[in-house]
Amino acid sequence: MKLAIYGYGNLGKGVELAIAQNSDLSLFCVFTRRDPKAVKTLTGAKVFAAEDVLRYTNDIDLLIVCGGSATDLPKMMPALAAHFNVLDSFDTHRDIPKHFAAVDKAATESGHIALISAGWDPGMFSLLRLYGEAVLPCGKSYTFWGRGVSQGHSDAIRRINGVLDARQYTVPINAAVDAVRSGACPDLTAESSHRRECFVVAEPHADRARIEKEIKEMPAYFAGYDTTVTFITAEELQRDHAALPHGGFVIRSGRTGKNGENTHVAEYALQLDSNPEFTGSVLCAFARALCKMFERGDRGCKTVFDIAPADLSPLSPEELRAHLL
Amino acid sequence: MKLAIYGYGNLGKGVELAIAQNSDLSLFCVFTRRDPKAVKTLTGAKVFAAEDVLRYTNDIDLLIVCGGSATDLPKMMPALAAHFNVLDSFDTHRDIPKHFAAVDKAATESGHIALISAGWDPGMFSLLRLYGEAVLPCGKSYTFWGRGVSQGHSDAIRRINGVLDARQYTVPINAAVDAVRSGACPDLTAESSHRRECFVVAEPHADRARIEKEIKEMPAYFAGYDTTVTFITAEELQRDHAALPHGGFVIRSGRTGKNGENTHVAEYALQLDSNPEFTGSVLCAFARALCKMFERGDRGCKTVFDIAPADLSPLSPEELRAHLL
Repeated sequence: MKLAIYGYGNLGKGVELAIAQNSDLSLFCVFTRRDPKAVKTLTGAKVFAAEDVLRYTNDIDLLIVCGGSATDLPKMMPALAAHFNVLDSFDTHRDIPKHFAAVDKAATESGHIALISAGWDPGMFSLLRLYGEAVLPCGKSYTFWGRGVSQGHSDAIRRINGVLDARQYTVPINAAVDAVRSGACPDLTAESSHRRECFVVAEPHADRARIEKEIKEMPAYFAGYDTTVTFITAEELQRDHAALPHGGFVIRSGRTGKNGENTHVAEYALQLDSNPEFTGSVLCAFARALCKMFERGDRGCKTVFDIAPADLSPLSPEELRAHLL
Repeated sequence: MKLAIYGYGNLGKGVELAIAQNSDLSLFCVFTRRDPKAVKTLTGAKVFAAEDVLRYTNDIDLLIVCGGSATDLPKMMPALAAHFNVLDSFDTHRDIPKHFAAVDKAATESGHIALISAGWDPGMFSLLRLYGEAVLPCGKSYTFWGRGVSQGHSDAIRRINGVLDARQYTVPINAAVDAVRSGACPDLTAESSHRRECFVVAEPHADRARIEKEIKEMPAYFAGYDTTVTFITAEELQRDHAALPHGGFVIRSGRTGKNGENTHVAEYALQLDSNPEFTGSVLCAFARALCKMFERGDRGCKTVFDIAPADLSPLSPEELRAHLL
């Protein structure tokens, strides 16, 4: 299966490395909006200009589109789905229905297959939320994120006047996690189940008290959260906060029995050293599934919910039944 | 969707209670090999004789077959698949390919759909093994069971001559669990990571040494394991071992990066107060999926690997994308 990567940032690099781990997948090229000559790939893959992508429709089974969810993917995915099988990791949860509709229309009209929102959340966590609710209909679901770097929150801090750089960690609150694991089904909000740790590099003479106040009061991002702000140097940020770890867990707690007397807790936990490399690995598995489904005649836009797990694996149905069932 | 339960032991009761939690599923009846007049169901469901099952082919969308894996299911499932859509929780892992072939032949020839080996292992744990390997191809998978009662192993002990009742607990060996959690990727087998504790009620004059030997040497079930056998009274078994808790976890540990420098750990853990009630709940979700797939024209035998997650849910694709993705 010949894949290509459209957009070569952290995620594109993660996909490139993941393709190299799968012997049935090959990387035809990387497309970039920068000058292709200025881009050096990690594995030596060819680099072409994004604007030339339509020259390669016959060379590529599926295009993995690695752009931002805010502005890139809503434009790129429908446009590319008119010519390619496409896959993305669109992660603005509330805009998924709209994005799905646009990609589905383009893919269906052009006779291609597409999948949006693969990764770990949305993606693996979504699957576990669905399995949890389907299997334990009388219960409650919880998603905790972290401890890990939230790029959106880090960006929000960087936009404050006087801030040079920042790293924001989302951290689950242990008491909330313990209450959920006990099967107690507490009422929790994102604010009551997570803390936010901010490491900020400020300009030399910036008003640190003002920056801290602006962070802690920022609506939607920090207001209502237990937020700590620590000022560090650019060197400390580079030395101690260069990696992009993340993780979290999805917990479904439910009851069965004639009088709901039995409690069951299903928990899926991820500890990721590299968020983009793990997301790239998830994208590769779904790329494989999409190629198989396209081969069988399936068309239009899918989500992770529509993919039979067997299609994600390079193993045959016989091998899966014999070794993994 | 009108379901029926074939076999009314612990699992059949778990399925009955689970059906009552799902408003889109209804229970037509329970079939028993005992005298139907002597069987009282938990929810007041009708009880018919198993030998009369063929009278009801037009009344039932799918039959959930709740028999033992050792001798019941290999006979029942192909026979019933000739007349019904069928679903089981066959759990003798090594015999799955043979069981699949027999059920697939019967279901395909008669134009029905079937699914074998749903539950939590095989079942949910199998799914997580597959997801783990597909997403992190360079890594290792581990499955731990327990501490909990294995019904298959308890049944196997009960079939031994001179045994009145038995309860078998599968217990993870702590040293093995610790080694996996440390990231050491140890080489482990099921036998080197679990102990088996057996509590046995023997007939008054039974040869206990012979029973213990038969248990410890039973292939596939106990041979090769650190197994302890404790003889207890029927009263002790009822008092101390009436509940059927279980659980365990599937861990996939894998590496990514140019030189494998980043480690990722995905863990799925279940803590179940009642194994049969949770297994019954899983069976209900897969029953729903099979009914949808049959409606769409799908035939033959499936496994959990072949089921798109969306089919397990009572929610529409639009609802799933809006609320769970």
